[in-house]
This record gives sequence, structure tokens and C-alpha cells, in this order.
Amino acid sequence: MQTDNLLKQVRFIKEIDKLKYIQRKTRLFNSERPENDAEHSWHLAVMTIVLAEHSDRPIDILKVLKMVLIHDIVEIDAGDTFIYDNTKSHTNSEEELVAAKRIFGLLPTEQGEEYIAIWKEFEEGLSKEAKFARSMDRFEPLLQNISNNGGTWKEFNVPYQKVYDKKSAIKEGSSTIWSYAENLLNESVSKGILKK
Amino acid sequence: MQTDNLLKQVRFIKEIDKLKYIQRKTRLFNSERPENDAEHSWHLAVMTIVLAEHSDRPIDILKVLKMVLIHDIVEIDAGDTFIYDNTKSHTNSEEELVAAKRIFGLLPTEQGEEYIAIWKEFEEGLSKEAKFARSMDRFEPLLQNISNNGGTWKEFNVPYQKVYDKKSAIKEGSSTIWSYAENLLNESVSKGILKK
Repeated sequence: MQTDNLLKQVRFIKEIDKLKYIQRKTRLFNSERPENDAEHSWHLAVMTIVLAEHSDRPIDILKVLKMVLIHDIVEIDAGDTFIYDNTKSHTNSEEELVAAKRIFGLLPTEQGEEYIAIWKEFEEGLSKEAKFARSMDRFEPLLQNISNNGGTWKEFNVPYQKVYDKKSAIKEGSSTIWSYAENLLNESVSKGILKK
Repeated sequence: MQTDNLLKQVRFIKEIDKLKYIQRKTRLFNSERPENDAEHSWHLAVMTIVLAEHSDRPIDILKVLKMVLIHDIVEIDAGDTFIYDNTKSHTNSEEELVAAKRIFGLLPTEQGEEYIAIWKEFEEGLSKEAKFARSMDRFEPLLQNISNNGGTWKEFNVPYQKVYDKKSAIKEGSSTIWSYAENLLNESVSKGILKK
């Protein structure tokens, strides 16, 4: 049974290597090089352990870590959808659900179901763990875009209000981080790297 | 105080982005593309949550995750040392300690000290959490090298016994994974991708 589980888990471990090829729109800090989903997920995981103290409510950090580590794995099949894309909804697409079932389905049944549930909880964004995980997912590209003189905001002409609305998700996880992020957005307008 | 901490943590979060530029010798699965340290750390973290059931002893999974997420951050300053390098010791170099103090030193004092301690615990490899974390760190490149028809073993002419000795660390964390890994090593010899 243990060995049977291990064989399935190894298949999953090999499959998710593909996440390293999924490129995001956002670029590394002070860089032209696009970030890939594996790098992004690692960064969110470190941010989670480092910033957990700023959560407005006590959170199960291990659960948040599971969320951020696996939240983009569905993109191996479904691809990365740009958060400011006007034509395609960013979350909960049918395509992503099919991907979740296929990829987490490589794991032993019970474990696969656990990860599908964690992924859905993250996507729904209702639990306090999902809210904190999503605030990390919004905060990293904000810092990156500022370091890149506007980054994807400038590149794709995204207006202040649209950025503000998306970044407001940070508030659901941490009022301290949100207050800092809100200041950064206002500063970005003053600097002319984000247009009102 | 909270905001003061956050400012320090954001400096750390920006600094560790550099881990995405540190290339390992090992290549991605079935690929020519070298893996970077951030991708590697992400992969170990997912392996940790997925394979934790195979630990021979109960472990604090959150602690193991912290270890694998931050274990290579010192390489931002000290660079990646190839595990089969004959001239330079892989672990505990003075250079790495200086790097740990500089990089984790960006964090609020107490938190920085916590991470230096976790990094040292991983490097020493004595606690059960460190043993499991290190077994993940040995297991991933083993799977990669096999998928790459010998990978770095072949590229650098590393003999079976040397690989076997390094990979034996897996045994300290999980007898199930070790038994599987040992079989893979023997199969690799039969296939001619690892030389006795």
C-alpha cells in the first residue's frame, strides 16, 4: 500500500515539473525575464511564512502553504490567464477544473481529493486561509510591477481603478499589508507608472 | 512595530528573488534546461507535503517546509556547489554562514535568527525534520537524472558508489522512499546510465 501510494506520488511529482515552463505575464524584480509559475509559487510560500504575523486572524499556516504551493498547478493544462484579461475570466474556469481532476487525480485517491478541495477553497477565497493565500498572490506582482517601473500595468495599459480593485483582495487577508500596498499604489500614480 | 517589521520583510522578499537566477547542475525532467534554485525549492516543498506519510517518524511538516523553502537562499551569495564536487565541501562553508547572516539579517531580528537556526538545523541534518528535508533534497535530482538518461552522473562521470553514498541520506528520512530509490539506482546500473 505504501509502495503503491509512492508510485502514484512519484508520477505526480514528475508531472508537475511542467509548471516550470508556464510563463506568467509578470517579470522578475528589476528584470525583463518573465517569471514562471514554479518560481512564483515558491515566492508566495516564503512570503507566507515570513508575513503570516500580519494576518488579521489566526491562520493554519500549513494549509495556506499547501494552497500557494499548488494553486497554479492547473495551469499546466489550462495555461496562465492574465489577471487583467478582459475576455477570459481568471478563476474557476471549467478548463481548470478538468485540469485539477486530471493532475491531482494522479495521486492516491484520498490525497488527490484533498488537493482538489484545497485548490477549490483557494479559488473560492472564502476561508481565512484562502484570503491570506490570495493576498500573497496579489502582493507579489504588485511589488514586481513597481520594481519594473510599472511592469504589466504599463505594458498592457491597465488603469489605476482596475489595479486597485484587484489588489483590494489583500485587505481581506491583512489590513497591515493592505495599508502598505495602498500607499504603494498611490505613490505609483504620483510617479506616473500607474495611470488614474 | 508591525509596519517596521513589514518594511524589513519586504526588503527580504525582494532580495530572495535572486534565487531564481542561481542555476543548479541538474536539469529539469526530460530536459536540457538547468533547474534554478527557486524551482528546486518549490519542487521539494510540494514533495514534502505529498510524501510526508512516508517519514519513518512523525515530523513537524511546517518545519520541514520552512527548511526546504529557505535551504538554498545562502547560494544567492555563495553560489551553488555541485554535490559531487571533489574540491569544495558541499555543506557548512564559512561563505554560506556569512551569506545566511547577511540575507536572513534583512528580516526583523528575532525572525532572522529563527531562519538562521532553521538553516543550520537543515545543514547539520540531525533532527528528524532535517533528515526528512534532506531526503527530499536527494530524491528530486535522483528522479531528474534518471529521466535524463543519467544526467549529471553521466555528464560528470560520477561512479555508482559515490552516488549511492550521497543518496543514502534518503534512508535517514524514509525507509520506503529509500527502498524505492535503491532499486532505481540498481536499475540505472543495469541500463548503463550509472557506472559501477
